[in-house]
Amino acid sequence: MSDLLWPGDARSGDLCTDASVLAALLRVESAWLTAIAATRPGAEDLSGLAGPDDLPALAVAAEDGGNPVIPLLALLRDRLGDDPRAQHLHRGLTSQDVLDTALVLCLRDAAARLREDLGEQIGALAGLAGRHRHTEMAGRTLTQHATPITFGLKAAGWLQGVLDARDVLDAAADLPAQLGGAAGNLAAVVAAFGSTDPVKRLAAELALPLRAPWHTGRAPLTRFGDALVTCTDAWGRIAADVLTLARPEIGELSLARSGGSSAMPGKRNPALAVLVRRAALAGPPLAATLHTAAATMVDERADGAWHVEWATLRTLARRTVAAGSQTAELLAGLRVDEGRMAATLAAARPGIDAEQRKYTAPGGPYRGATDEIIDAALERAGEK
Amino acid sequence: MSDLLWPGDARSGDLCTDASVLAALLRVESAWLTAIAATRPGAEDLSGLAGPDDLPALAVAAEDGGNPVIPLLALLRDRLGDDPRAQHLHRGLTSQDVLDTALVLCLRDAAARLREDLGEQIGALAGLAGRHRHTEMAGRTLTQHATPITFGLKAAGWLQGVLDARDVLDAAADLPAQLGGAAGNLAAVVAAFGSTDPVKRLAAELALPLRAPWHTGRAPLTRFGDALVTCTDAWGRIAADVLTLARPEIGELSLARSGGSSAMPGKRNPALAVLVRRAALAGPPLAATLHTAAATMVDERADGAWHVEWATLRTLARRTVAAGSQTAELLAGLRVDEGRMAATLAAARPGIDAEQRKYTAPGGPYRGATDEIIDAALERAGEK
Amino acid sequence: MSDLLWPGDARSGDLCTDASVLAALLRVESAWLTAIAATRPGAEDLSGLAGPDDLPALAVAAEDGGNPVIPLLALLRDRLGDDPRAQHLHRGLTSQDVLDTALVLCLRDAAARLREDLGEQIGALAGLAGRHRHTEMAGRTLTQHATPITFGLKAAGWLQGVLDARDVLDAAADLPAQLGGAAGNLAAVVAAFGSTDPVKRLAAELALPLRAPWHTGRAPLTRFGDALVTCTDAWGRIAADVLTLARPEIGELSLARSGGSSAMPGKRNPALAVLVRRAALAGPPLAATLHTAAATMVDERADGAWHVEWATLRTLARRTVAAGSQTAELLAGLRVDEGRMAATLAAARPGIDAEQRKYTAPGGPYRGATDEIIDAALERAGEK
Amino acid sequence: MSDLLWPGDARSGDLCTDASVLAALLRVESAWLTAIAATRPGAEDLSGLAGPDDLPALAVAAEDGGNPVIPLLALLRDRLGDDPRAQHLHRGLTSQDVLDTALVLCLRDAAARLREDLGEQIGALAGLAGRHRHTEMAGRTLTQHATPITFGLKAAGWLQGVLDARDVLDAAADLPAQLGGAAGNLAAVVAAFGSTDPVKRLAAELALPLRAPWHTGRAPLTRFGDALVTCTDAWGRIAADVLTLARPEIGELSLARSGGSSAMPGKRNPALAVLVRRAALAGPPLAATLHTAAATMVDERADGAWHVEWATLRTLARRTVAAGSQTAELLAGLRVDEGRMAATLAAARPGIDAEQRKYTAPGGPYRGATDEIIDAALERAGEK
Repeated sequence: MSDLLWPGDARSGDLCTDASVLAALLRVESAWLTAIAATRPGAEDLSGLAGPDDLPALAVAAEDGGNPVIPLLALLRDRLGDDPRAQHLHRGLTSQDVLDTALVLCLRDAAARLREDLGEQIGALAGLAGRHRHTEMAGRTLTQHATPITFGLKAAGWLQGVLDARDVLDAAADLPAQLGGAAGNLAAVVAAFGSTDPVKRLAAELALPLRAPWHTGRAPLTRFGDALVTCTDAWGRIAADVLTLARPEIGELSLARSGGSSAMPGKRNPALAVLVRRAALAGPPLAATLHTAAATMVDERADGAWHVEWATLRTLARRTVAAGSQTAELLAGLRVDEGRMAATLAAARPGIDAEQRKYTAPGGPYRGATDEIIDAALERAGEK
Repeated sequence: MSDLLWPGDARSGDLCTDASVLAALLRVESAWLTAIAATRPGAEDLSGLAGPDDLPALAVAAEDGGNPVIPLLALLRDRLGDDPRAQHLHRGLTSQDVLDTALVLCLRDAAARLREDLGEQIGALAGLAGRHRHTEMAGRTLTQHATPITFGLKAAGWLQGVLDARDVLDAAADLPAQLGGAAGNLAAVVAAFGSTDPVKRLAAELALPLRAPWHTGRAPLTRFGDALVTCTDAWGRIAADVLTLARPEIGELSLARSGGSSAMPGKRNPALAVLVRRAALAGPPLAATLHTAAATMVDERADGAWHVEWATLRTLARRTVAAGSQTAELLAGLRVDEGRMAATLAAARPGIDAEQRKYTAPGGPYRGATDEIIDAALERAGEK
Repeated sequence: MSDLLWPGDARSGDLCTDASVLAALLRVESAWLTAIAATRPGAEDLSGLAGPDDLPALAVAAEDGGNPVIPLLALLRDRLGDDPRAQHLHRGLTSQDVLDTALVLCLRDAAARLREDLGEQIGALAGLAGRHRHTEMAGRTLTQHATPITFGLKAAGWLQGVLDARDVLDAAADLPAQLGGAAGNLAAVVAAFGSTDPVKRLAAELALPLRAPWHTGRAPLTRFGDALVTCTDAWGRIAADVLTLARPEIGELSLARSGGSSAMPGKRNPALAVLVRRAALAGPPLAATLHTAAATMVDERADGAWHVEWATLRTLARRTVAAGSQTAELLAGLRVDEGRMAATLAAARPGIDAEQRKYTAPGGPYRGATDEIIDAALERAGEK
Repeated sequence: MSDLLWPGDARSGDLCTDASVLAALLRVESAWLTAIAATRPGAEDLSGLAGPDDLPALAVAAEDGGNPVIPLLALLRDRLGDDPRAQHLHRGLTSQDVLDTALVLCLRDAAARLREDLGEQIGALAGLAGRHRHTEMAGRTLTQHATPITFGLKAAGWLQGVLDARDVLDAAADLPAQLGGAAGNLAAVVAAFGSTDPVKRLAAELALPLRAPWHTGRAPLTRFGDALVTCTDAWGRIAADVLTLARPEIGELSLARSGGSSAMPGKRNPALAVLVRRAALAGPPLAATLHTAAATMVDERADGAWHVEWATLRTLARRTVAAGSQTAELLAGLRVDEGRMAATLAAARPGIDAEQRKYTAPGGPYRGATDEIIDAALERAGEK
C-alpha cells in the first residue's frame, strides 16, 4: 500500500491495510474454530488459505452482499473442500461479528503503535520543558506580544496536551470483541454449542475484552475515533506553534530535517510540521462521520451506517499513526534558537513588560508559577 | 430565551443562556475577589451589579476586544465607582480565565441536568427490557427480517448505549477551572499575591477541579463535546428504531404523545422521536468544530480557535439537554404493541426461522443468550 | 436578539431572528390569502395578529407538532374569531410550505445584505490591488520566504476569492417558494381552487421563483449553505493573511481598529480578523449538516432531516452576514506598512532572490505577470 | 487499487488512483515541455519514464518536501540523463502548479464518468416517472401516512434531485489549470520565456480553462467538492426511500439484485441501496474538509491546508463515482410492486383520505398537480 497523496502514509506500514484486514478476518475465523473446538487441536489456522493475491477479487465480490466477509467465506469453503473445518467455519456467527472483531484487532495494533510514538513524544517534550525551563521568550496572545514566558512553559503545555491525548486513548483502546450472531442474541451459538462459552473462549483467544453484542451500539468506536482525533488535536497545536515560530521573521524554532522546493534552491520548508497540521485538519470530520453513523444506527444491523465506519476508521487510524510518528520525529529534531527568542523579547520591550509594571518592578524575573507548572507536567509524564 | 426554530429548546431552561453566562462571569469575578481576600468577608458578591438588561449593550461591546469580559469589566468598574472592590477586580486574571471558567460552570449545570435525564432514561429502559424480556418480535438487519428477537433484547441494547453515554459523560464532566493569567504562567497572580494560593482558593470556592492552565490545550472541552454527542448518538439510535417501528405498516411501537398536522386531521406524528433524531444529526459537526478549534490553537491564546468554541459549546449543550429530556419523555410514554409484534413475526415465517432450522427444530424458543444479555444490561444499570 | 458568545452578531440586526421568522410566516400566510382571493382586496394582511410577545409561547408550543406553524395557525384562528379569513387561512397548504417559504424570505434578506458587504469588500480590495500594484513584499510559501511579490498581487488574489464567493452566492440566491401541500402534489390546492394558479400568484406576490415542490429535494438549500461557506472561506483566508502579517515580528499590516485586553494595557489585538477567522472555522460543519440532512431525506417529508435545517440555516446566515460586515470594515481600515514590507524583503535577500538568479540578473524587477493578474482581477471586479 | 473496506470501489476503475495521478503529473510536465517548445516537436512525452512500479518509492520520498512532485522531478532528471529535456523540465513552474493541474485532470475524468451515470439515472427515472404516473401509493410524512400520491410523483421528485445535482456539477466541472510559479506571479515563466504565452499554450494543450493563479484561492475545488456531495445527497435520498419501501412490511419496492447473508439462507438484502446510503453519509464531512482547508489558506502557499485537499478530493471523487454507478444500476433494476402499493393504500383508508374529505368527495382521484409536476420533471430531463 502506498499513498502518493498522503505523504508520510508509509509510516503506518501495514496497519489496517487490506492485507492486514484480510489477515485479521482469517484470524477471527480461525480463533472461532478453536473456540468451538471444531477440529483437532492446532489445525484451525486458516491463515494460509487466502492472501494478498485474493484481495482484488474479494474487494469486487464484497459488493454483492455489501461486505467482504461473505465472499471470503465462499472462497474459504471452496479451498477447504472436504476439509472438516469447512463444516464448522463461521458456524453461529454473522458477518458483522467477524468484520467488527477484525477491525478491532487492526485498531488495537494501531493503538499500540500510537502509544509508542506518544511515549517518544512525551520523552522529547519532557526534555524540552526541563532544558528550557528558564529560556525566556515572548508570550503571544491573539498573535500579539503579551507577557514574557519561557519556552519550557510552552513545551510543558504541549506536553499536557499529549498526556491528555494519551489518557483519552488509553480509556478508549480497550475495544471489545463483537459476537452477537445474526440478530444480536447469539441464538445460533447457543443452539449449536449449548452455551455462550465459545464466545468467551474467542475473546480470550484474541485477548480482547468482551461485552454484550454492540452491532448497533457504537460508543466503543466513536470513543476510539474521538481519541484518535484528540491525538491529532494535540499534535496540530504543536505544529501550529512550530510553524509560527519557524517563520523567518521569528526564527525561534526550526526543524532538523527540512524539505526542499521544486522551484527555489535553498528553501527549507518545515515539511513535517506542515504534514502534521494537515492531519489535524483532516481528522475531526472523520470522527464526526463515526458519530453520525452511530446516531443513525437502526434495527439489529444498520443499512449503511455500519458500512461507512470501516474505511473511515482505517483512514483515521493510519493518518493518526503517521502523524504521531511525524510528530515524534519533529520533536526529537526541534531546534531552539535561544538567541532569537531573547532578541524578540528585547525588541518587544518595554511594551511586553506592561503587565509586570503593574505589579512589580521590571527587570527581575516575571515567571509566576512557571516552575510549578513545568514540574506538574513532568511529574504527570513520569519524568520527575 | 426562546428558539422558534429548535422546538423543544425551552426544555433547557436557562442553561447556558446569555443571562446564565453573565451570571457565571459575575460569579467567577466574585469568587476571585473572595480568593484574593480583597475586601471584607461577604462583600464580594457582584451579582447585583449587572443583569439581563445589560446584555444587549455587552454583546455589542464585546466585539471591540473580541470577548465579553472586557466590556463587562468596564461596566463593573464604572458601577463600582469608589467601592474598594474596583481596585481588586480581576486582578491578575485574563479574559480567558474568566470566560472559560464561567462556561465550565454553565456546562457543569448542563451535565447535572443530563445526568438526571439519563437516570430517568435508564430507569425506563430497564423497565422495558425487564417487562419485555420474552416479548417476541422480528429482528431486522439491513432493513430485512433476520431472526426473531425479543423487544427486551432491543431495549437492553438501547440501555447499553445510554449507559455508555453516561459513562463517557461522567468521565468528561469534571471540567476544570481555568486560571493562567495573561500568558498562562500566573505571573501577575504570583507577583500580586505572592503565591498561587488564590488560584486554589478560587477552584475550591467554585468547587471545580484545578489543572495547569489550559488556554490552548483544549482536551477538556473536546472530551466534553464528544460526550454530549455520545449522548445524542445513543438517543438518535433509539429514535431511529422508534421511527421505524412506529411506521403504520409496522406499528409495533407508538408514542403516548403524538403531534398533529396543519393539513391532515387525525394524523399522529411521532414528533418527539423526530426531534430527537434531528438533534442527533446536528451534534457531530458541532463536536467536530471543537476538535478543529483544538487542532488549530496557537500561541498562548489563539486567534479565532478559542472564540469559536463558546457558541458551539452553548448550542451543543442546550440541544443535548433538550434531546435528553425529550428522550426521557419518549421512553416513559413508549407503547409496545405486542400483538403487532407477534403478527409481524407470524407473517415473516417460515423465512425468519431459516437460521434456526439450521441448528434446531423450529417451534421451540430460539433466544440464545437473550436473558444473559438483558441481565447484564440491568445489572450495569444498577437495576438488578 | 443579542448573542454574548458571538461577538459581532449584532451586525446581523434582525435578519433571521425569531421575530423575523414570525413576520415572514405571517407574510406567507397573508400572501396566500391574497393568492386565493380569500377576502376583499387589501384585507389579507395578518401581520398585526401576532408579534414578538407571542414568541415564547409559540416556541414552546412548537414542540407538540414538531414545528412552529401549527401553533401559529391555532393562535391566528383564535384571534381571527369570526373574521372570514379564519376559514381561508392556510387552506390547501402544509406546514412545510409555509416554514420553508418563510425561511427563504429571511435568507433572501440575508443574501441582499451579503451582496452589499461583498460590494464594499470588492471596492476596498480593488483599491488595495491598484494602489499597491508595485509595493514589494516577501512572498511566502509553507511559511518560508519564497520569491518577492507585491502587496497588490496578494490583494488581487483576495479579490478573486471574494469575486468567486459573490458569483457562487449569486448562483445560489434565487431560492424558490415552496408549495406542495400535504404530500407534494398540491392535491388540496387543486381540489379547493380548481388549478395551481394560486401557487403562481403566491410566488409572484412574494417575488420568489417557483419550482416543483421540493419538500425532500433540498439542493436549493445546500447550494445556499455552500455559498455562505464559500464567502466565509474567502474571508477566512484574508483574515489568516492579515493575522500573519500583523504579527509584531512581521508588522506589514495592521488594523485601524484594534481591540484591547483585560490584562495588558496597551496591547492592540487584531480583533476583527480574529472574529472573521472564527466564523470561517465554524461554517463548514454547518453546511455539512445541511448536506447530511439532504442526504437523509425520506418519504414526502422527512423525520428529522427537515427539522435540523432551520436553526442551522439561521445560524449560518447570521454569522456569515456578521463576518461579511466585519471583513468589509477590516479591509476599509487595513493599514499597509510599506516600510516594513521593504525591510522584510531586504532582510530576506539574497536568499529570496535565488529563483530570480536562475533566470535573470537580480536587481531588476522580477514581477512576472503581476500587472496582468491585477488587471484581470480589477476588470472582473468592474473596476477597470 | 482495491478497497476491501469500500465495497463497490472497483466501479471507479483507475480514476484518481496513484497510478492515474502519476500519469497526470507526467502529462502536465510533458505538456509544459510542449508549451515552452523545449525540444523538437513530438519528443516531449515523458509518460514512459515513470510508472506504477515507481509509486512506492515516490510515495515514501514525497514526505521530504511534503509533496510528490519533488521526488518525481528528481527521478525524471535522473532517468533523462543527458536528454536535453532534462534542462527544460518544470522550468518556471512550482510543485503546486503541477500537482493541482494533475488533480484537475483526474477530477475532470471523474466528472465525465459522473455525467454518464447521471444520464443513465435520468433516463431510468424519467421512465419510472412516466410509467408510474398514476400508480397510486400512500404518501408519507414524518413516517406516517399522509395523503395518496403516485409512485410517478415520487420518481419525479427523485429526478428533480438528480437534475439539480447534474446542474450543480456542470457549473462546477470547468476546473481550471493552475499556473502561477513559485509565488503566484509567474515571475520565472516571464523571465525565462518573455511572456505568459506558454501558460496559455499549456492550458490549451490540456484543454483546460485558465484563470489567474489560485494557489490559495480554492473556490474552484470547494465548488467541485460541493457538487460531488450534491450528487450523493440526491442519491442518498433515493436510497433512503428505497430502503424504507423495501422493508418487508411495506414491500412496495425491491431490487433486481439482492445481497445474501453469511448467516441466514434466503435473506435478500438491498445491498446496493445500503452502499449508496453509506456514501451519502460519508460525503458531507469530506466536502467540509475542503472548505476548512480553503478557509485556512495563508501566504502564497498554505502550510497544511493545501496538503489536506489531495487525498480528500480523491476519496470523495472515487466514492461519488462508485455511488453514481450503483445508483444507476439500482434504478435500472428497481421493481415496483403496484399490488403492494395498492394494498397499503387500501389499508390506510379511510384515514389517508381525511384531507380529501375536507375538499371533495373521496373516491375520485385526488392527484392535484401530479401530471403537471411529472411533466415538468420530464421536460427538464429532456424526455418530453
